[in-house]
Amino acid sequence: MSQSGFSPERRTLLKATAALAAGAGLSSRLRSDAEAAGKGATAPPAPSPSPRPAPPAAEITIIGPRKGYTPMIGTLVSMLNYTRWAVLRSVEGTKQADLDYLLDAKANTIGGMLMHLAATDTYYHLNTFQGMKWGSWPDSVKQKWDSAMTLGDAGRRDIKGHDLDYYVELMTESRERTLAELRKRDDKWLLTFDPAFKANNQWKWFHVCEHESSHGGQIRFLKGRLPGAKGGGD
Amino acid sequence: MSQSGFSPERRTLLKATAALAAGAGLSSRLRSDAEAAGKGATAPPAPSPSPRPAPPAAEITIIGPRKGYTPMIGTLVSMLNYTRWAVLRSVEGTKQADLDYLLDAKANTIGGMLMHLAATDTYYHLNTFQGMKWGSWPDSVKQKWDSAMTLGDAGRRDIKGHDLDYYVELMTESRERTLAELRKRDDKWLLTFDPAFKANNQWKWFHVCEHESSHGGQIRFLKGRLPGAKGGGD
Repeated sequence: MSQSGFSPERRTLLKATAALAAGAGLSSRLRSDAEAAGKGATAPPAPSPSPRPAPPAAEITIIGPRKGYTPMIGTLVSMLNYTRWAVLRSVEGTKQADLDYLLDAKANTIGGMLMHLAATDTYYHLNTFQGMKWGSWPDSVKQKWDSAMTLGDAGRRDIKGHDLDYYVELMTESRERTLAELRKRDDKWLLTFDPAFKANNQWKWFHVCEHESSHGGQIRFLKGRLPGAKGGGD
Repeated sequence: MSQSGFSPERRTLLKATAALAAGAGLSSRLRSDAEAAGKGATAPPAPSPSPRPAPPAAEITIIGPRKGYTPMIGTLVSMLNYTRWAVLRSVEGTKQADLDYLLDAKANTIGGMLMHLAATDTYYHLNTFQGMKWGSWPDSVKQKWDSAMTLGDAGRRDIKGHDLDYYVELMTESRERTLAELRKRDDKWLLTFDPAFKANNQWKWFHVCEHESSHGGQIRFLKGRLPGAKGGGD
């Protein structure tokens, strides 16, 4: 068993899943007009001005209900999947030294942010599926995840020296656990309001999703500023 | 009539709408654990460790159907509203010099990114509601929006010298037009697949939403690096 509790077989499966999401052949199709002009990846993906004959539709750019989930949950899952795909695509091939690169004394590393995304799934999982009050996590959970959740000084101190697979595995593991729980729930649960949080469950998981996009934007910004980086600035 | 085609009365209404979204009293409640530790705004909002008695629920953190829209469209609108609220909150009070600040030669300004968000709504509006092929915009549209959509050199050259109200007004105007069109459509339309785009309409507008979060992350990163900035680094 690995440190993260996965058998080698399970690891392989997870890597395959991540590779499927990251390498579904969409990179060349999801080109933004800014990308087409060599300006980076911040503008929204859009077809090139003269699109080639359309390849078969890829589910990743169809937002809507998904088999195995109730309709609203499935739609949210399709959003989580797209956002995760976009982040994994943006870090594909990033080397350890670049994952550990600090732009300035205030910055987070790309690796730190990837682990932060796994921590976010983990903590929202405990809150929404296990009913734990925010911050009341067991010590073992805090020890594993608090540096990643807090980032800043703790993140810079504790999160370094890992390759991309390490982070992708943590992200995939926590996300798979999230999806397994979402498959057991229904749209009524999704709309349930939590007075302590002042938000409903759908906000919580949508927030996990848009929070991932927010860090995705920062990751792309940092990628344009790695030593030796070429091309766009964000 | 102003340059953007709004009467003074309309301007006032728009500003009030934006102020409502930006200042709904949630700032103190939507605190992340990282914020609580003075580390910035990148971690997901969550209640403070010892939340005070809950104030009345704010609709902004309830993701779900909305009056005046079909169920799936309303849910997507609630996501667009939350994301817009988060971006407006992050730039509240930003002065013109800071909106024009360039971190380095590759960077976009905060003002440029805000106008980019308005351009994104505008172009997806033309594509999804008016059926225009991506990039086939009228010259008048290109002249007004292409620099903002492309960013990079064009954005740095053309977008500067404006105060925050200028950008908020453009963002609100384009978004109001989007919402007006969404009110006329239904969930079947939302799930309609566009072969030229290789995506359905819900992906397009979800992408507008998560793309806004992505730039929101970059805006927060830049805010932590403005001349004289204190506190968190991203």
